[in-house]
Amino acid sequence: MSKYHPLTEQEAISIARNIPGIFSGEGELSCREIGDGNLNLVFHVSQASTGASLIVKQALPYAKVVGESWPLSLDRARIESEALIIEARLAPGLVPKVYHTDHELALTVMEDLSSHVIMRQGLIDGGVYPLFAEHISDFLAKTLFYTSDLGMNQQEKKVLARSFSNPDLCKITEDLIFDHPYTNADTNSFDPHLQEDADRLWSDAELHLEVALLREKFLTHAQALLHGDLHTGSIFITEQSTKVIDPEFAYFGPIGFDIGAVLANLLLHYASQEHWSTDAASRSERRQYLISTIREVWTGFERKFRVLWNEHGTDRIAKTAGYQDHYMNRLLQDTVGFTGAKMARRIVGLAHVADIDRIPDADVRATAQRLALAIGTNLIKQNRQVSSIEELIDIAVTASKV
Amino acid sequence: MSKYHPLTEQEAISIARNIPGIFSGEGELSCREIGDGNLNLVFHVSQASTGASLIVKQALPYAKVVGESWPLSLDRARIESEALIIEARLAPGLVPKVYHTDHELALTVMEDLSSHVIMRQGLIDGGVYPLFAEHISDFLAKTLFYTSDLGMNQQEKKVLARSFSNPDLCKITEDLIFDHPYTNADTNSFDPHLQEDADRLWSDAELHLEVALLREKFLTHAQALLHGDLHTGSIFITEQSTKVIDPEFAYFGPIGFDIGAVLANLLLHYASQEHWSTDAASRSERRQYLISTIREVWTGFERKFRVLWNEHGTDRIAKTAGYQDHYMNRLLQDTVGFTGAKMARRIVGLAHVADIDRIPDADVRATAQRLALAIGTNLIKQNRQVSSIEELIDIAVTASKV
Repeated sequence: MSKYHPLTEQEAISIARNIPGIFSGEGELSCREIGDGNLNLVFHVSQASTGASLIVKQALPYAKVVGESWPLSLDRARIESEALIIEARLAPGLVPKVYHTDHELALTVMEDLSSHVIMRQGLIDGGVYPLFAEHISDFLAKTLFYTSDLGMNQQEKKVLARSFSNPDLCKITEDLIFDHPYTNADTNSFDPHLQEDADRLWSDAELHLEVALLREKFLTHAQALLHGDLHTGSIFITEQSTKVIDPEFAYFGPIGFDIGAVLANLLLHYASQEHWSTDAASRSERRQYLISTIREVWTGFERKFRVLWNEHGTDRIAKTAGYQDHYMNRLLQDTVGFTGAKMARRIVGLAHVADIDRIPDADVRATAQRLALAIGTNLIKQNRQVSSIEELIDIAVTASKV
Repeated sequence: MSKYHPLTEQEAISIARNIPGIFSGEGELSCREIGDGNLNLVFHVSQASTGASLIVKQALPYAKVVGESWPLSLDRARIESEALIIEARLAPGLVPKVYHTDHELALTVMEDLSSHVIMRQGLIDGGVYPLFAEHISDFLAKTLFYTSDLGMNQQEKKVLARSFSNPDLCKITEDLIFDHPYTNADTNSFDPHLQEDADRLWSDAELHLEVALLREKFLTHAQALLHGDLHTGSIFITEQSTKVIDPEFAYFGPIGFDIGAVLANLLLHYASQEHWSTDAASRSERRQYLISTIREVWTGFERKFRVLWNEHGTDRIAKTAGYQDHYMNRLLQDTVGFTGAKMARRIVGLAHVADIDRIPDADVRATAQRLALAIGTNLIKQNRQVSSIEELIDIAVTASKV
């Protein structure tokens, strides 16, 4: 019989106390459950006398999203902790430290990042993160290169891919990103004023073909070990530090899916400036900052990925003339397509983003929603023609001028 | 401790006797080891009094090819037997029946097909197989459709893919098909008169880019459960019956790889007609037969795959307008590329084909070898532009007229 059960705060404290090197043996520990209760329990355990703290995160055997509940494999806790450990090795300093894992209890004990804020909230609050593009492009280039056939022994990659088979969580992505937003699905959720926009999305044959092709890539293209859910709610940030969290969706998939997640959430925030910027000048400045960040994320990723390839390519085939350029261009096109898909689903699909949903005025919110949809659908439709990140930027800037 | 050890003939007989429903309890059983000793032991167990017989196939823990020997996972016996069982369910009558498996002993007890001949030898002997295209296109369409995301629940596919992770045998393909033939590798083996042809192969940058792209598809594109080694030496045949054997290379890969293996071996035989046809008229007739077969294999596959898709597609995305045409055209292009790759490696790489190697006259052999190389390299270079099977046929016919 499994020893799995949801932990109490007292149990979380006992587990925390056994982690060596964090707390003093003397002072009392206190515990608060700070999760949103939808997928995981998150216990913050701290010691007032020393200021030391850590996080005990435990997976729940179900997912709750917007009132719906469905069973979800506890194996995702193993996947999350193993992904964090691999990411820490490949991209040091850019993920929380893992102190302890217990696969049967589906828990991971890890570094407390309360000195950071969730990037989505940080952006909504007007935060500027001058090192973010540098950090996240580092994370992307290193984790994706070193788990691809370009940077890893191909046989070891196959063995690793076996332990990152993640059918349950992939199913969520397949449905909520690549299927439901493009049809009248029960899970969809959107403001009534978007009914006509949704109708257009549901009947756009050109768009549907591109989404089917992107979904096929998500299903079959095992390029590298992805984070799998790299939106700005999965990033803890300060001006000096960036920490990627929550890789429970990790699996071997198309590299552009992770990069697209980052760019999509920057562009959703870009669209939300209809509200969060108080006047045209500050809106323009804020958007300029976001566009620069998007450009630097891609160009930083591309530059670093190419350097890793040139200096640490696994074999002679990686050095084939013309192959790297061909590969990088396909990565860009995938990135553009997945960016679009990850925007559209946040407007008409099940799970939204606070950047846009929290805009109080319905008309302003509608403008931001339609801008996000326009950027997203244009990116999806044009992904296979793109040859420069400037084209993605043009699509965003042009849409916001209409 | 594992009970694995290479079986004696007496042990093979004991195992065979325990299979219910094959032999009579009375008559004696006799046994001959008929394998080539390079990868497997193959025991033919028969009963003179009843005429009943079966095969006991056991994997050896190493591979020997052209004098080289390297260790090889016994897990391939499990993969082979599980693939045979799945193929029998999806394409009834087109693989040998499996009577019994023992994963620890790495053995499969199966139907004896001695009434059939190995298709490669059958073709060399001038055999004509009027039902082959119908049968093999059936096998390809059914096994590949029903194990793809188009014909199988996507989550079940991921679970199945885990048990068909096949790093050892994929490594052989990666090296011997997609790497070594294009560089001066120790494993290569070719007639001295082909030195200049090999040099050209090793320095052809346009070719190398296409091979790198095909290799990447082999490494990352998990479309369906492949047979993985579907040449004419893996097919038992009569005029009425076709049985696909030896799926130990099975793994989830690009569909065009299996179809390309069939077409490549028909084209290698086409090239070998420089010798096996005794005059120009019979050569022309024989080549016409092979070309018709190639056309029917592809068109039969395409027609059947589309019917399965239309009638048994798993979900609404499969019905997206334009998606099927797009998908089938990519399958054709992959097929053309893999056909070419599987031809070139048989001329300059480690493992050759008897169709060509057994041509006694060096000049005639050289003509056949150069024809196979010309067809193969042209197919590789043109694969991404092809839009009809007639283009593959044109490349073959044109090359043989030069």
